[in-house]
Amino acid sequence: MTATGVLALDIGGTKLAAGLVDATGRVRSFLVAPTPDGRRAALDVLFALGRKAVADAGADWPEVAAVGIGCGGPLDAEGGVLLSPPHLPGWVDVPVAGLVAAAFGKPAVLDNDGTAAAEAEHRFGAGVGTAQMVYLTLSTGVGGGAVLNGQVYRGATGNGAELGHVVVDWRGRACRGCGGRGCLEAYVSGTSIAERAREALDPASFRRGSGGSFSGSSLSGVDAVTAAEVAAHAAAGDPLAVRVWRETIDALGTGLTSIVNMLEPELVVLGGGVTRAGDALIAPARAAVRAAAMTPGGRSVRVERAALGDQVGVVGAAAVAMRKFFRKGTV
Amino acid sequence: MTATGVLALDIGGTKLAAGLVDATGRVRSFLVAPTPDGRRAALDVLFALGRKAVADAGADWPEVAAVGIGCGGPLDAEGGVLLSPPHLPGWVDVPVAGLVAAAFGKPAVLDNDGTAAAEAEHRFGAGVGTAQMVYLTLSTGVGGGAVLNGQVYRGATGNGAELGHVVVDWRGRACRGCGGRGCLEAYVSGTSIAERAREALDPASFRRGSGGSFSGSSLSGVDAVTAAEVAAHAAAGDPLAVRVWRETIDALGTGLTSIVNMLEPELVVLGGGVTRAGDALIAPARAAVRAAAMTPGGRSVRVERAALGDQVGVVGAAAVAMRKFFRKGTV
Repeated sequence: MTATGVLALDIGGTKLAAGLVDATGRVRSFLVAPTPDGRRAALDVLFALGRKAVADAGADWPEVAAVGIGCGGPLDAEGGVLLSPPHLPGWVDVPVAGLVAAAFGKPAVLDNDGTAAAEAEHRFGAGVGTAQMVYLTLSTGVGGGAVLNGQVYRGATGNGAELGHVVVDWRGRACRGCGGRGCLEAYVSGTSIAERAREALDPASFRRGSGGSFSGSSLSGVDAVTAAEVAAHAAAGDPLAVRVWRETIDALGTGLTSIVNMLEPELVVLGGGVTRAGDALIAPARAAVRAAAMTPGGRSVRVERAALGDQVGVVGAAAVAMRKFFRKGTV
Repeated sequence: MTATGVLALDIGGTKLAAGLVDATGRVRSFLVAPTPDGRRAALDVLFALGRKAVADAGADWPEVAAVGIGCGGPLDAEGGVLLSPPHLPGWVDVPVAGLVAAAFGKPAVLDNDGTAAAEAEHRFGAGVGTAQMVYLTLSTGVGGGAVLNGQVYRGATGNGAELGHVVVDWRGRACRGCGGRGCLEAYVSGTSIAERAREALDPASFRRGSGGSFSGSSLSGVDAVTAAEVAAHAAAGDPLAVRVWRETIDALGTGLTSIVNMLEPELVVLGGGVTRAGDALIAPARAAVRAAAMTPGGRSVRVERAALGDQVGVVGAAAVAMRKFFRKGTV
């Protein structure tokens, strides 16, 4: 069996991924490695992963037609240049699409990873057939993308749908992602969930806070609290974890309400590591947005977990390349 | 000179308007009346205004080709039915497009007044030539509309771009418009600006508040405080008015930041009665969004006052009818 596909590269702040994806969205090979410090070292690892992904796909692949690259913004998608993504310190004005095209001898395209993931879920995942769909990834940071009227929405400079930076509390927590205040990302990213739990556990910061003593929290024995532990301990009824988790749901419900009131999507897809909590996250978030968002859009909107899991990054990067380089009927 | 145009009807909670608008967006006749209580009485006044608008336009009008109607949502634009707009108590499931078509013997179309106003500013006003434009009206309530990729954005059920119900404070003021909490509308509508000033002036509510005495406020001699008075007294340096006005700007800056991060428009157009404050509102709101919204979209976005003023409602209703009933080249 032969097939035509694309090489997909996903550049994250903590990990790099590469995969060969066929035209049906199926991932034929998939490799992940931690992101090393330094731009040069990271690109070396990325290119090595890419070459291995091609080799791993096997000899029945006659052609890698193109390369798709996903990365956090801000970026210049048209020019294929990373401008200054906050999760990649020192990567300023990097012409990554050009570097990739030179390394692999194939046309390459760069897009925002949130946009790419939205495209992946719309083309191959939870959002197939929808006209208006919003995708939110709750991960180290919070990113997103939107499909409006059946098309991926880009905004004026290609950096639209920064859904993690919808503000939920104008006097709220500082946001590491954008330097602003009270963004959704400052509450529902894995980083923030863990950080808020640690703040609540720490007696010094706790004295400045408002409520009772949590010295008996089951989390207090945990060395380095993670979002997954907060979710698990909340499910087990630990009061501190429950408090942090409830605040997470409140923030998510508020942010989704703003998003739904603004875009009135049929479907909100939630992806990223934090969604491993499953229905402990999705069900109350769905209930919150249905209760608070305006009718009729708020009543009918579906809120669902992403279908593509950990591979959404490479499927997204592949989907971006397919949109750019594949014409209808060529694959 | 003869011309073809449309009759435009604008149904507001406090006033009704009608006008004859030609295909270039020029308003040939314009009439306004207070909205009487009761649906039947209001429709009678609206139809009388419409007939007078046609008569006032003069004998050189050979044809009113269609009727456009703008009203606050939620509504079913396709069916021409008002569902249950909160500013029109008792108007539940009113087939207003059908009633208007019957009354005037012309095809009629209904759309959300925020959507219609966005279309008007995009087609004939401040947003001509833009691909991504957001319109926000700061009036009795706060409505809005968006033009994305050159097209008015509707959402899944035609009620998208409810920009007044982007949340700025998840634990904030109750919102009269949607029953939610902390919406932009709960801070920057004319109603809310006046209400917050009255709360600050009232000693009973004031004791519950946080800061110093405002018994010396120049507003304390005003019988029924309005948003315009708050703006004027703030400009004159009255501390209470300054505080209320600053909170208004903060809320507007926060809401616009969320909107710009989500939609990355080239242009934000601000209209409605509250914008009569002019640069005391527009300039600090522009500065706030440019400082807080993400680069590069936040740095390049323009924030401008609407061009169509009090006639935006009828021009918008007319633009909706032109989009639906006029084909290119027919006018």
